[in-house]
Amino acid sequence: MTYTFSNRIANLAPSAIREILKASSQPGVIPFAAGNPAPEAFPVEAIREISARLLAERPIDCLQYSVTEGYGPLRERVKADLSTRLNCGTDADSLIITSGAQQVIDLAAKVLCNEGDVVISESPSFIGSLNTFRSYGLRLRGVPMRDDGMDLDALESILKTEKQKVRFIYTIPQYQNPSGISTSLEKRRRVYELALRYGTLILEDNPYGELRYEGEDVPAIKSMDTENIVIYAGSFSKILSPGLRVGYALGPAPVLAKMTVGKQASDVHTTIFAQLLVEEWLRRYDVAAHIAALRVMYRAKRDLMCDGLAGTPLRFARPGGGLFLWCALPEHIGMLDFARRAVGRKVAVVPGSAFLVEEGESVNAVRMNFTTPTDEQLARGVEILAELLAEYSA
Amino acid sequence: MTYTFSNRIANLAPSAIREILKASSQPGVIPFAAGNPAPEAFPVEAIREISARLLAERPIDCLQYSVTEGYGPLRERVKADLSTRLNCGTDADSLIITSGAQQVIDLAAKVLCNEGDVVISESPSFIGSLNTFRSYGLRLRGVPMRDDGMDLDALESILKTEKQKVRFIYTIPQYQNPSGISTSLEKRRRVYELALRYGTLILEDNPYGELRYEGEDVPAIKSMDTENIVIYAGSFSKILSPGLRVGYALGPAPVLAKMTVGKQASDVHTTIFAQLLVEEWLRRYDVAAHIAALRVMYRAKRDLMCDGLAGTPLRFARPGGGLFLWCALPEHIGMLDFARRAVGRKVAVVPGSAFLVEEGESVNAVRMNFTTPTDEQLARGVEILAELLAEYSA
Repeated sequence: MTYTFSNRIANLAPSAIREILKASSQPGVIPFAAGNPAPEAFPVEAIREISARLLAERPIDCLQYSVTEGYGPLRERVKADLSTRLNCGTDADSLIITSGAQQVIDLAAKVLCNEGDVVISESPSFIGSLNTFRSYGLRLRGVPMRDDGMDLDALESILKTEKQKVRFIYTIPQYQNPSGISTSLEKRRRVYELALRYGTLILEDNPYGELRYEGEDVPAIKSMDTENIVIYAGSFSKILSPGLRVGYALGPAPVLAKMTVGKQASDVHTTIFAQLLVEEWLRRYDVAAHIAALRVMYRAKRDLMCDGLAGTPLRFARPGGGLFLWCALPEHIGMLDFARRAVGRKVAVVPGSAFLVEEGESVNAVRMNFTTPTDEQLARGVEILAELLAEYSA
Repeated sequence: MTYTFSNRIANLAPSAIREILKASSQPGVIPFAAGNPAPEAFPVEAIREISARLLAERPIDCLQYSVTEGYGPLRERVKADLSTRLNCGTDADSLIITSGAQQVIDLAAKVLCNEGDVVISESPSFIGSLNTFRSYGLRLRGVPMRDDGMDLDALESILKTEKQKVRFIYTIPQYQNPSGISTSLEKRRRVYELALRYGTLILEDNPYGELRYEGEDVPAIKSMDTENIVIYAGSFSKILSPGLRVGYALGPAPVLAKMTVGKQASDVHTTIFAQLLVEEWLRRYDVAAHIAALRVMYRAKRDLMCDGLAGTPLRFARPGGGLFLWCALPEHIGMLDFARRAVGRKVAVVPGSAFLVEEGESVNAVRMNFTTPTDEQLARGVEILAELLAEYSA
């Protein structure tokens, strides 16, 4: 039997970087390629206590079918928190619980886009979201990143050219993956204005916003959304647990209603036991203190990595938060060659080309993650990379 | 702002039966419309013990990111079990864990079908799957059900007419939802032969197979699959817990590899804590004894419902297993009118039209579920329906 596949999936061919990513999951490899929370970042005692209590007091609620839009008290709590803490969301918005923020991306594409429609994204951007867009046969247009966010001239030029074909602008304004860049407040305002002027929606993805290591919070684009054009994706993956797969979407009620219909056809509802765990944690534990502790832990890891790489030919900006360091390589060091040699010495990094949006773009950089490795792995990995870089120069 | 949606989602308009389904979730309504396990069917003590042990011994495994194809030991255990117990699966097959069996349906459509492709389904069939197919813009062709499974002449006629446009035949051979019908062994063989002859795949959905109340197990179509054309969907929703959202797909390795790529773009992976709970339960508990107890419980509920309705004008076959009773109404009692009046008296049933596959089909029947209600609700609900039916005849 020969199997033929849909065009949307045929588009998702494994890339050249797959071998590097595969090699990086071997035992003994220092994981600078991942994007996981540190093992010591999980509130294990809290989860134990909550889990035991839930299964003692209301086991059937943990195990029975539930509703597609998510557990009511969790939806209300998250919506209220986004309103008071981030000034996001109005009466015209609703909030649903999803199976991780990845599903928000999936559902937004599902309900808003037909094949061939255009989605505009920062370039480079999160490969998971880009692949989701590709899985719907969408045409991706990339806007180059500057130090303070998207190149607005390039963005406007695409909006002008593609007109009604553009369904939304996908952006990660805070501690962007992979670049680490935070979009300035002024640029957030301009992106919002451009979206309004050209009649398109914005999909604002903010998985890392709470992991701020210095400076002040910059308002989310969603907080400016007087015209109800922003869908905001959030997640508990980075502050509580990615394995539970609990995220959420806040956005215009009619769009969220359609996303709920789409979700029902995808997975009926998000694991209800996981939703109950998250709700109890938010309600009964000191989440702010937990996040403060994460910030201290990750700030130290970021500094270990940045300080260790300071004398090397890698050029990077110390990110103010998030998980990633984006390192430009000098011309004479090829990104793929460097990544291959690094993994040969048991340090896994991701070649920057993985994150490019359009064919024909090029980059000579690698992405490194500083939250997954232990402090010892960080110190040792950085040492190995520095040695490797020195050999190129020799 | 006016929002415009994708064609695939615009196709999923709320139907006339929505109001009835909505009314049926009101408190005090006897739930013959649902498809839930009974509250007393959950192995609560086991889940408590396993949960506490997992969070004590390996909390990070419960909470950290995991791999898209599912937890290795669970995949191996389920594959081995399907092989020894049902003679399903070969070296050419692989197995992945999904977010419920609903996601198997979603991923099969996602990787195999372009918009406008044809999927053949028994009619009536499970509305959740039909809506998933619709959400991909597929053209559904329905094959009428006979007492022993699909009308094979109708099936062959569609295969002849639609030819290469047919991507797969969707079937629930055991205790079908909503009809309660089990396809005979002979017909399973013929369906398989027809699929082979016309070069199409089969998607075999078997969520209810273990809930057998009498008779012998009939071999799954997957057990005949020497040519690797069957994707088999299974689930722990009906024997353990639907709220955990753990299902699986067993099928040709190249198809499953593409489904894994598709799943990564949908939700990255299935809640890993839920997967670990299921794996421990399968490994350390007496699952056969648990299922035997469910059979006793549900057989009694089925008999309560069937015996209570025996003297009424409803025509039905006592199903040999599963969750549902399919009741044909006499001509002078309209399905929608009956369902509306029933819910008015606080008994919720589902009008059969909800399960039809193609526009223009008609039916005069209702689906009732006997696993969700308590025994008291069963007795009372059946009494109310009998009274209502008697009023029509008067």
